[in-house]
Amino acid sequence: MKAEIIAVGTELLMGQIANTNAQYLSSGLAEIGIGVYFHTVVGDNVGRIKEALAIAKSRADLIICTGGLGPTQDDLTKDVLAEVLGWPLVIHQPSMDKMTEFFANRGVPMVESNIKQAQMLEGSTPLANETGLAVGNALTQDGTHYIVLPGPPREMKPMFEHEVKLWLQARIENLLPLHSIILKFAGIGESLLEHRLIDLIDGQTDPTIAPYAKEGEVAIRLTTRATGPEDAAQRLRPLEAEIRSRVGEFIYADQDVTLEEFIVRKLGDEGRTLAVAESCTGGQLSDLLTAVAGGSGAFVGGVISYTNEIKRQVLGVPAELLEGEGAPGAVSRETACAMAECVMELCGADYGLSVTGVAGPAELEGKPVGLVYVGVAVRGQAVTAVELRISGNRPTIKLRASKSALYQLWQRLKS
Amino acid sequence: MKAEIIAVGTELLMGQIANTNAQYLSSGLAEIGIGVYFHTVVGDNVGRIKEALAIAKSRADLIICTGGLGPTQDDLTKDVLAEVLGWPLVIHQPSMDKMTEFFANRGVPMVESNIKQAQMLEGSTPLANETGLAVGNALTQDGTHYIVLPGPPREMKPMFEHEVKLWLQARIENLLPLHSIILKFAGIGESLLEHRLIDLIDGQTDPTIAPYAKEGEVAIRLTTRATGPEDAAQRLRPLEAEIRSRVGEFIYADQDVTLEEFIVRKLGDEGRTLAVAESCTGGQLSDLLTAVAGGSGAFVGGVISYTNEIKRQVLGVPAELLEGEGAPGAVSRETACAMAECVMELCGADYGLSVTGVAGPAELEGKPVGLVYVGVAVRGQAVTAVELRISGNRPTIKLRASKSALYQLWQRLKS
Repeated sequence: MKAEIIAVGTELLMGQIANTNAQYLSSGLAEIGIGVYFHTVVGDNVGRIKEALAIAKSRADLIICTGGLGPTQDDLTKDVLAEVLGWPLVIHQPSMDKMTEFFANRGVPMVESNIKQAQMLEGSTPLANETGLAVGNALTQDGTHYIVLPGPPREMKPMFEHEVKLWLQARIENLLPLHSIILKFAGIGESLLEHRLIDLIDGQTDPTIAPYAKEGEVAIRLTTRATGPEDAAQRLRPLEAEIRSRVGEFIYADQDVTLEEFIVRKLGDEGRTLAVAESCTGGQLSDLLTAVAGGSGAFVGGVISYTNEIKRQVLGVPAELLEGEGAPGAVSRETACAMAECVMELCGADYGLSVTGVAGPAELEGKPVGLVYVGVAVRGQAVTAVELRISGNRPTIKLRASKSALYQLWQRLKS
Repeated sequence: MKAEIIAVGTELLMGQIANTNAQYLSSGLAEIGIGVYFHTVVGDNVGRIKEALAIAKSRADLIICTGGLGPTQDDLTKDVLAEVLGWPLVIHQPSMDKMTEFFANRGVPMVESNIKQAQMLEGSTPLANETGLAVGNALTQDGTHYIVLPGPPREMKPMFEHEVKLWLQARIENLLPLHSIILKFAGIGESLLEHRLIDLIDGQTDPTIAPYAKEGEVAIRLTTRATGPEDAAQRLRPLEAEIRSRVGEFIYADQDVTLEEFIVRKLGDEGRTLAVAESCTGGQLSDLLTAVAGGSGAFVGGVISYTNEIKRQVLGVPAELLEGEGAPGAVSRETACAMAECVMELCGADYGLSVTGVAGPAELEGKPVGLVYVGVAVRGQAVTAVELRISGNRPTIKLRASKSALYQLWQRLKS
């Protein structure tokens, strides 16, 4: 079954909102084994909605429309679909009764235009709206399935979960659901990762292999159709094993978790604590670590040492490292080591992680933009630091330096 | 000019990410007077990308493609466009040089596939990528304009702002240029702001009034078409004056600067310094302040005190405030005041700003999710704190608490 999602609404074309409905529906359809081939967004305009429906019919056998089900004159989706398919609109009485009661309860007069929301294409399956007033519709004509859903995600999501999935599953024959494994990588770029796996990617049939990158992280998704988890494992595991044999050292998780979440959970499981000292990342590393809900136990806090005074007075970095004749300076391996050890001691943590570098736009201490040192202190072990060269503008350097620091910590946690 | 945005990427059709690029571009095109009529999303597939381009050409005279510019075999956009238009691909030497340097700096071998990223359609205008490696393209064939942008928002946005807008403006004829004033607000929500201005918004013709909210900030953009700055001012100033008379106390700037940038610049101009103590915001407030380039002078650093031990031992918050019979607790007005004063003293700064609260998902000290205290210490003045009730999930509460802290500081800076 090939699906297309048509979102109707001028507010989408004005950029007032993002089409998160298409994302939600695509993900939900993939789960039940239906592939989405196109998304279309069209404004509140009869001619252009007709055009979008005609194009979708030519290339899809499942068309899901979202939006345009409200009470205003701009809400056109059901009217246009009724005209295109030649099915008249009728009142869905239970929806009408619910709406009448809704307005009566609020003591607000129901204006005529609201009646539209209770309309359905005659002969279609009404889809109940748990959280709003507009009824949805599902129907099949000439082998093409049409589903009409409201635009507000609050209304669309329960209708999809509780009504649409069942309606669709009864109409999909001989189709096995999709099963996926996600492998998350750190310390390797998307292109190098793909280079190492290029023969597998080129030769893919079943399972499929999809590498993707976002927010400083790289992942690979392996997907197959299978009758159940065991059947899926039989298909997915050999390919996973092959990938692990080539690039296993960069895999930190086999589920969709961020590196910071993985680290916070791992520290929490082991009952260890972490403190950070940030210079060029300016708080972003701590922000990532505290984005993890329930992570308070492992991450105890730290110091943003944006100036040499704070490095010296708050952290206790020796003055001779920072300034003066022959001093390595704030941006140096030595200072990164000192920051990591100092913050570990100051906060009484098991691990200390530090970042110092030049985020730009100007160079610092005669050192170039993008030069970054990450220090890792482990209680009872020697402190280490690595030098990184990070390209990009200021926000990019901050993000990559933060993620690189997490990667360095993960390397130590593994060993 | 009728525009269509084609986003290329199977990850969009799988529901892994939302098409936020289309939203961003639609909004940006509207600002320069170009209407978007359709969004299309298509997977990484030669045939279907061709089909999407053909349909777009039939109904739009500006086609903007995003995504599919990376180094992998799935990245097809330029190849397909080159084939469809019959323009050969050539190497854009400056991009090639930049990429060679990038890999040399990292000491990582550049794999062959990366060369794709430096390719452009021969005769097109290359669009520089400030934050990544793939060069963009702009060209016109048979009256249809084509623009090819990278998929990652981090790369796409600067390319659109700094390259595409200029390229497009030179190609829009007989259209007076748009002139805008932006008013930035703090301490007032979008809906309340809109409520106070609803008659102006409903009655708008020229200038237009567009309220918008993003990343915890609210802004109003007033726009008109005019022959020049003086003509524009004549049209815009009366409306601006009316808005200021109603909600002027919430306006912190009449240009598109973030609240953190405004504050860092103001402190810098006055030669004052700021230190922060963060609990529930976990580094995000510092991250915002250090996002401001050249802000090192004003923001000196601070402490992430995620546990009571750090509040006590690193900041020096009195133990009796934090724990024990009758103690107000970590999430309290008293602790917020102590944190602000302590961090100001510890860092030798002129101002101390603190945030302590419950970011969720679970309550803390029997206090509800969303309860937040912000403390402001000013050298030589009494420290103050305010109580806030913030709704939303964990990331929303962190962001709103950070922005609210900046607002509280701005209020003190003004007085």
